[in-house]
Amino acid sequence: MALFDLPLEELRRYAPAVAEPADFDAFWRTTLAEAATRPVLLDVRPEPTDLRLVETWDVTFTGFGGDPVRAWYTRPAGLAGPLATVVEFPGYGRGRGLPHERLTWAVAGYAHLLMDCRGQSGQYGGGDTPDPGQGAAGGPWPVTWGILTPHDYHYRRLITDAARAVQAARALPGVAPDRVVVAGNSQGGGLALAVAGLLPDLAAVLSTAPFLCHLQRAIEITDAAPYGDIARYLAVNREAEEAVRRTLSYVDAVTFARRAVAPAHFGIGLRDTVCPPSTGFAAHNQYGAANGRPVPPERELHVYPFNQHEGGEAVHVRRQLRWLASVLADR
Amino acid sequence: MALFDLPLEELRRYAPAVAEPADFDAFWRTTLAEAATRPVLLDVRPEPTDLRLVETWDVTFTGFGGDPVRAWYTRPAGLAGPLATVVEFPGYGRGRGLPHERLTWAVAGYAHLLMDCRGQSGQYGGGDTPDPGQGAAGGPWPVTWGILTPHDYHYRRLITDAARAVQAARALPGVAPDRVVVAGNSQGGGLALAVAGLLPDLAAVLSTAPFLCHLQRAIEITDAAPYGDIARYLAVNREAEEAVRRTLSYVDAVTFARRAVAPAHFGIGLRDTVCPPSTGFAAHNQYGAANGRPVPPERELHVYPFNQHEGGEAVHVRRQLRWLASVLADR
Amino acid sequence: MALFDLPLEELRRYAPAVAEPADFDAFWRTTLAEAATRPVLLDVRPEPTDLRLVETWDVTFTGFGGDPVRAWYTRPAGLAGPLATVVEFPGYGRGRGLPHERLTWAVAGYAHLLMDCRGQSGQYGGGDTPDPGQGAAGGPWPVTWGILTPHDYHYRRLITDAARAVQAARALPGVAPDRVVVAGNSQGGGLALAVAGLLPDLAAVLSTAPFLCHLQRAIEITDAAPYGDIARYLAVNREAEEAVRRTLSYVDAVTFARRAVAPAHFGIGLRDTVCPPSTGFAAHNQYGAANGRPVPPERELHVYPFNQHEGGEAVHVRRQLRWLASVLADR
Amino acid sequence: MALFDLPLEELRRYAPAVAEPADFDAFWRTTLAEAATRPVLLDVRPEPTDLRLVETWDVTFTGFGGDPVRAWYTRPAGLAGPLATVVEFPGYGRGRGLPHERLTWAVAGYAHLLMDCRGQSGQYGGGDTPDPGQGAAGGPWPVTWGILTPHDYHYRRLITDAARAVQAARALPGVAPDRVVVAGNSQGGGLALAVAGLLPDLAAVLSTAPFLCHLQRAIEITDAAPYGDIARYLAVNREAEEAVRRTLSYVDAVTFARRAVAPAHFGIGLRDTVCPPSTGFAAHNQYGAANGRPVPPERELHVYPFNQHEGGEAVHVRRQLRWLASVLADR
Amino acid sequence: MALFDLPLEELRRYAPAVAEPADFDAFWRTTLAEAATRPVLLDVRPEPTDLRLVETWDVTFTGFGGDPVRAWYTRPAGLAGPLATVVEFPGYGRGRGLPHERLTWAVAGYAHLLMDCRGQSGQYGGGDTPDPGQGAAGGPWPVTWGILTPHDYHYRRLITDAARAVQAARALPGVAPDRVVVAGNSQGGGLALAVAGLLPDLAAVLSTAPFLCHLQRAIEITDAAPYGDIARYLAVNREAEEAVRRTLSYVDAVTFARRAVAPAHFGIGLRDTVCPPSTGFAAHNQYGAANGRPVPPERELHVYPFNQHEGGEAVHVRRQLRWLASVLADR
Amino acid sequence: MALFDLPLEELRRYAPAVAEPADFDAFWRTTLAEAATRPVLLDVRPEPTDLRLVETWDVTFTGFGGDPVRAWYTRPAGLAGPLATVVEFPGYGRGRGLPHERLTWAVAGYAHLLMDCRGQSGQYGGGDTPDPGQGAAGGPWPVTWGILTPHDYHYRRLITDAARAVQAARALPGVAPDRVVVAGNSQGGGLALAVAGLLPDLAAVLSTAPFLCHLQRAIEITDAAPYGDIARYLAVNREAEEAVRRTLSYVDAVTFARRAVAPAHFGIGLRDTVCPPSTGFAAHNQYGAANGRPVPPERELHVYPFNQHEGGEAVHVRRQLRWLASVLADR
Repeated sequence: MALFDLPLEELRRYAPAVAEPADFDAFWRTTLAEAATRPVLLDVRPEPTDLRLVETWDVTFTGFGGDPVRAWYTRPAGLAGPLATVVEFPGYGRGRGLPHERLTWAVAGYAHLLMDCRGQSGQYGGGDTPDPGQGAAGGPWPVTWGILTPHDYHYRRLITDAARAVQAARALPGVAPDRVVVAGNSQGGGLALAVAGLLPDLAAVLSTAPFLCHLQRAIEITDAAPYGDIARYLAVNREAEEAVRRTLSYVDAVTFARRAVAPAHFGIGLRDTVCPPSTGFAAHNQYGAANGRPVPPERELHVYPFNQHEGGEAVHVRRQLRWLASVLADR
Repeated sequence: MALFDLPLEELRRYAPAVAEPADFDAFWRTTLAEAATRPVLLDVRPEPTDLRLVETWDVTFTGFGGDPVRAWYTRPAGLAGPLATVVEFPGYGRGRGLPHERLTWAVAGYAHLLMDCRGQSGQYGGGDTPDPGQGAAGGPWPVTWGILTPHDYHYRRLITDAARAVQAARALPGVAPDRVVVAGNSQGGGLALAVAGLLPDLAAVLSTAPFLCHLQRAIEITDAAPYGDIARYLAVNREAEEAVRRTLSYVDAVTFARRAVAPAHFGIGLRDTVCPPSTGFAAHNQYGAANGRPVPPERELHVYPFNQHEGGEAVHVRRQLRWLASVLADR
Repeated sequence: MALFDLPLEELRRYAPAVAEPADFDAFWRTTLAEAATRPVLLDVRPEPTDLRLVETWDVTFTGFGGDPVRAWYTRPAGLAGPLATVVEFPGYGRGRGLPHERLTWAVAGYAHLLMDCRGQSGQYGGGDTPDPGQGAAGGPWPVTWGILTPHDYHYRRLITDAARAVQAARALPGVAPDRVVVAGNSQGGGLALAVAGLLPDLAAVLSTAPFLCHLQRAIEITDAAPYGDIARYLAVNREAEEAVRRTLSYVDAVTFARRAVAPAHFGIGLRDTVCPPSTGFAAHNQYGAANGRPVPPERELHVYPFNQHEGGEAVHVRRQLRWLASVLADR
Repeated sequence: MALFDLPLEELRRYAPAVAEPADFDAFWRTTLAEAATRPVLLDVRPEPTDLRLVETWDVTFTGFGGDPVRAWYTRPAGLAGPLATVVEFPGYGRGRGLPHERLTWAVAGYAHLLMDCRGQSGQYGGGDTPDPGQGAAGGPWPVTWGILTPHDYHYRRLITDAARAVQAARALPGVAPDRVVVAGNSQGGGLALAVAGLLPDLAAVLSTAPFLCHLQRAIEITDAAPYGDIARYLAVNREAEEAVRRTLSYVDAVTFARRAVAPAHFGIGLRDTVCPPSTGFAAHNQYGAANGRPVPPERELHVYPFNQHEGGEAVHVRRQLRWLASVLADR
Repeated sequence: MALFDLPLEELRRYAPAVAEPADFDAFWRTTLAEAATRPVLLDVRPEPTDLRLVETWDVTFTGFGGDPVRAWYTRPAGLAGPLATVVEFPGYGRGRGLPHERLTWAVAGYAHLLMDCRGQSGQYGGGDTPDPGQGAAGGPWPVTWGILTPHDYHYRRLITDAARAVQAARALPGVAPDRVVVAGNSQGGGLALAVAGLLPDLAAVLSTAPFLCHLQRAIEITDAAPYGDIARYLAVNREAEEAVRRTLSYVDAVTFARRAVAPAHFGIGLRDTVCPPSTGFAAHNQYGAANGRPVPPERELHVYPFNQHEGGEAVHVRRQLRWLASVLADR
Repeated sequence: MALFDLPLEELRRYAPAVAEPADFDAFWRTTLAEAATRPVLLDVRPEPTDLRLVETWDVTFTGFGGDPVRAWYTRPAGLAGPLATVVEFPGYGRGRGLPHERLTWAVAGYAHLLMDCRGQSGQYGGGDTPDPGQGAAGGPWPVTWGILTPHDYHYRRLITDAARAVQAARALPGVAPDRVVVAGNSQGGGLALAVAGLLPDLAAVLSTAPFLCHLQRAIEITDAAPYGDIARYLAVNREAEEAVRRTLSYVDAVTFARRAVAPAHFGIGLRDTVCPPSTGFAAHNQYGAANGRPVPPERELHVYPFNQHEGGEAVHVRRQLRWLASVLADR
């Protein structure tokens, strides 16, 4: 797919007003408070692997509603002290996979907590966490589970899990609590922005090809899943449009991004039909705009003009590694 | 897609031994017995429509686990007496829709109970019944919900709902309990066969392009959803194959069909890549073969050589109407 | 296909000047006058069905050039008196099908005349009416038959048939002549608008996803058949463009719609690539604009933002049923 | 599409018994006799071109039913004497096009008559001959026009036109009547075989990727148009299968080929999904088998293992040129 | 693909400033001068064919770097005198093919030199000329060979070959050196424009659906090969964008076209996704704009609104034949 | 794509006789001997990365014809001693990429040499090694470069590079020369088999979804690139089939595999349309069959029934890690 969204010059200044419910902050405050009533770590046990340079633990923490959520915690082998830690969230249709699938952050010297995505694994990647709440009224695919109300929506649970994953990381041995970074690609990039809007004390945010941004536009300009699955649901449930749009307004990563304070690093492919570039720019361009601070947070964006949803891949990872080292060095 | 499965002559005699778990009958006996501990009708209320020739009620009955399941009950207007009744099950990704969507049976003079499909609506058609059990471990699409064990599998719940729908029909006013027919296309055709294997006293079975048949083969010879979604799940969860094959053996419509006793009417398209013809023939050719009766049940099959999953459509409906009238006249 | 045509706000006010030949009215007056020289009903015979709530007759009436055109006439069984009557026109590539395929209007209490489409059946649906005039110079598909002159064009014949179907309906027993409604989807929706522009005394018009509208634009913005077949014909017959554009100007449903006087009910899917929404809005927005009456006709439009050519389906049918009941109640 | 039909070794000996109606010869004898009652040439007028090495005439001859059929007659410029003449038939969806489109035969020194295909032009190529008979009952595309009876079938008319084209050629000035060759690709290759079975005195036959061969199999093993269009028609007209199969038995090029006596040159691509190789081999392998002569006709076949419907293209043309020169040299 | 580029009215006046390197003229002057140090003709030998109206020679000339480049030289048979000569360049992925593949120009009375394309044959057409320079750093497909610097780029070699082909033609017996025309379609059309900008003394230029035009835009608005292959290369080599854009600026046919002086004839399809119409209009609209002459060169353009990359085909060839005859008559 | 090749039971015993040229061993002996005349290491320089657990060097070694070939050499940081070493070959269209792209082997404790693929990078992955020999006669894509003779074929050069990479590894500091393993996926898996047949002293071979196996069959049963590109080349160069088949016989990985002696570990997806399973089984089933040893080499195969070319992915990597540790422990 060649260029199909706004031209780059327009994207650079694209800052749409995204629908923000009046009780947005209250909704999330309550939701996180409920989750916080439980101890965050349920289980941490060593996971044997065939890797010599790293050590891995199989972590279970309490996510939304106290549901058990799994994660891999991986560290450079034999390094005892507290480390800067990257909490990573997977893409749509994936879970935490196997412990040797995502080694970059540990090899770069970070502790790494890779959260599972409740109920989603099995489409593109494996995982071990079901979504006990998925039986609410809504559509048959994860992106539509419980979509008729914010209260029941799958992303209410998933975003809460993601925020809890940061809290779980801080409870793990060997994590430097003031040096926790959130990261993710696609859905993971959207979750990273959401957590950045919910938690005030992150060291950095790495978000590429972010999903969940500018949802009201996204469902109109692309047919590709998962946005397209919301449109497909509405094509059948023609009278649900208003309810769905309302639900989506509670999980829009642009609204979260506006509240964020941590330094942020973005990557966007201009030919990305899965998470169209205008939706990512909408988040980037307003990142921190409503955080109440006098100085905007540090923000860096790399654009990949010839790439689709894969974005910058290894080239971008190299940029992330350098940027993150420099940001953490400043702290 | 031109002809891609076995040639017609081979299909005519295709009767593969389908894997049958030793506790198949016990599994279903227990499952239905649990469901039967609850009163079957929860609610029956008139549904206003703009149709003058029929009357419709919005029915809620208790399905698997006592979960409320919705259905439309439609009858020729102003006809009080007990009628022969068609209990119909929708295709995959559909629910009961709106009351005016499926009028044929009522216009033909039957009472008609159209069951909703828990959790599935929103892909191709609307519905009103969530699946509270869908959060078990398994994959993200309905056909993979809870697929790791027979106990948790979505189709355990859905088949139980279908059997309960017949019991609900018999509890409704104006239904002749000895003249209840089950019918369906695709997933509905598979559910009709399943119910025919579970309930001994149906008046007839109408099954077209049946899903759920000869599952071990189906997941190997077609990529089309929903069978293809099981294969896609196994492509990611490579180590789950044995568990999945075991689960499927508890819901194979061939195994149900072998136990059936009611007269049955089938339709199969030879170019059907969604529910490949060999899988439907496997059910048809063994229909009633293990029902313990001395005389095989009446059985009629219409083959549509140039059709895909749509099969015989209106031509087949005409054949169904005539065959059913004749079968019921004989009772 | 996500949104691809004009944005909704522009569609709401889109009222392009559609090319209108100077002799448009004379052309159609002469054409209809020729057709009117023959008695309209050739044959009406009962059609046996397996349906108890309705009765059906197989009707043959004289269409364009006196050619015999078939139709199904279906009524609530046992109701003698004159009824409000819906004359329905099929979509492209379809005919009248079998008598039990389209029961909604009869079940709602209307008499229903379903016209066959000459020469078109066999692509998506069955029928019984050939097109004796189809051998004129032009292209190989119905939408291009005789397209080099208005005189020979297939749609001259088909629109005449449609107007004659209304006259046939009025000649049938049990039809209330002042309560005749025209209805159709896609090509049927275009024919309904055409008839609405030709006949002054209809009770109502129901047009969804209308074909034949704003043809000069339609052949430029979509590749989907049938508009795309005209473009494909012009891709081969590069020197025929002017002749084809002239022919199309005689059958544009926008030009017909401008002349209409009856109350009208529309449905349009914003993602309809077969009959792009701008072409339907062009007809809706100018409906009745040139009918010479002081007060514009009543007009209602439902937009389906996430739907393609299927539009509102059962949801829209429900709206049609309610609207039509209310419009007819006022008469 | 990689290899999908029978393996080459099986193709080499594939000689299926093709259904042959008892009155096949009578049917065609009568049909040709009717056509022969009219003078063959209606009009021959010089066609100006911008080509200096050839001269072209626009020819109109009487085809089936006396209908006027157009053709281009092209010869080396300034050569008066009688020449060996290639009568060529176009592929499906094409007509004679423009005079400068097919120059090879004239440049090679032959006279060349390129017949138009009634009613078909406009899909892939231009033409000037409508099909006045196309309005009979049947489907909407040329391959289905009048397909319900042999009497009304489009190919009855087209094959008759093709035989008449040979007779027209012989009536033209400058044609050596005993050195007339028929040639064609795809549909043209099928027509060449048909004419070879109808006319006893051709000098040679050139047939590549022949259509119309082994029709009963062809409609089962490929979805590609035009065979696939017959299957699509039958998918809608499920009750027409027997009638359609009967009609096709009257125009099967295998049956014609069995009767042929002239030397023949074939080309077949093993990956041809439009005209599957087994159908072409069926004709080649039985070419002349029922011509009543003691010695089988000369026959040459070139197989293109990696080609689809395009077959051998220029490589094959070179082989045709050489073979034809050698065959004609022997006469 | 329906209309997807700018509307026709905008295309008519579309004249973008195309990036032009400061040393563009020097680069090409040097490149051609190096090539000119060798004698142009290496070998000319008669090629036997089965064609009587023309004679063909197999020509080898020295192209870029002295590399041997093949060509077919074809003339009306038996015509000794000097003729106006069309030098034709093939499309991408093609070579000179076989001598009987492109006969139109010779049949029209011209001498015809058909150049081979180094290294490209084997994708769509055959050829006999490898590209000894293709091993430089760059991507795996011809359009990306050596793309990291202008010096190594495949098109530097190919454009030089094209200019040398004109010089080779003039060195052949029977060519009227002041009546040499360059012609081509797609890549051939781009090469024709390039040569027109390099050589001052051509009699005419025929360019249809020209490739190589407005490259900076072309790689952004289409995914179709070959432009899309450059985008695919940049999708992997994300850091090569600047180098690639610089290289492309040395071979942009718009820049060449601006320098041209010969009369030119263009053809453009408005639905051409391979060589989008705006890129061809950019060349046409600026043709001769920077040639330093007081009077702009004669220029004719035919637009094909319903055609894709195939453009006007035989209709356009007829227009080319007439226009060229008239242009040459004026000389 | 569901199952399309032979059934699993047949694959288990599929051992076709693959065409083996008489001078196969001599051809390769000579080729490797020529390469061996040069010193193997040209340059080894530290490559800075942002990774703390590993160290990387940018290696240049002399491949075929002395051409410089690049590789990444990566080791656990700070580990001085000689390590078991995995030499890995990339898939088609890829090169060595960036140093942080393939970390698994180093993290598992091995030294890792990742060879670049000459001329191929730019399609799916980046690289830094051009193929100076690519300009020989043949087709335009890597798999067809120089394909007309074994001498000029791209894979002669690439296989030589692969064998030289092993020799380069052994010349590097910190490599245990008797513990060198070759590994690869797809093309890399084919190269691993080729090297296993050329070099007698490897510690193990890891080959998944191997390309280059049973080439004569592969080009007939799949259209997918790269095998399909050979078929596409032959579709244009119809007269090159014999030459191409001869060339392929010199690089068939089955013939190499028959000569291998090292323990081997395979992975094959049963739905792999890129490298069809029968071709991989042909190599596996004959692995070591002609190595002249009394005892066949150890051999392990994992089959992935629901996977395409991606095969077992992380699940298979885990199996590789365990198997390799166990095999090396035995040495």
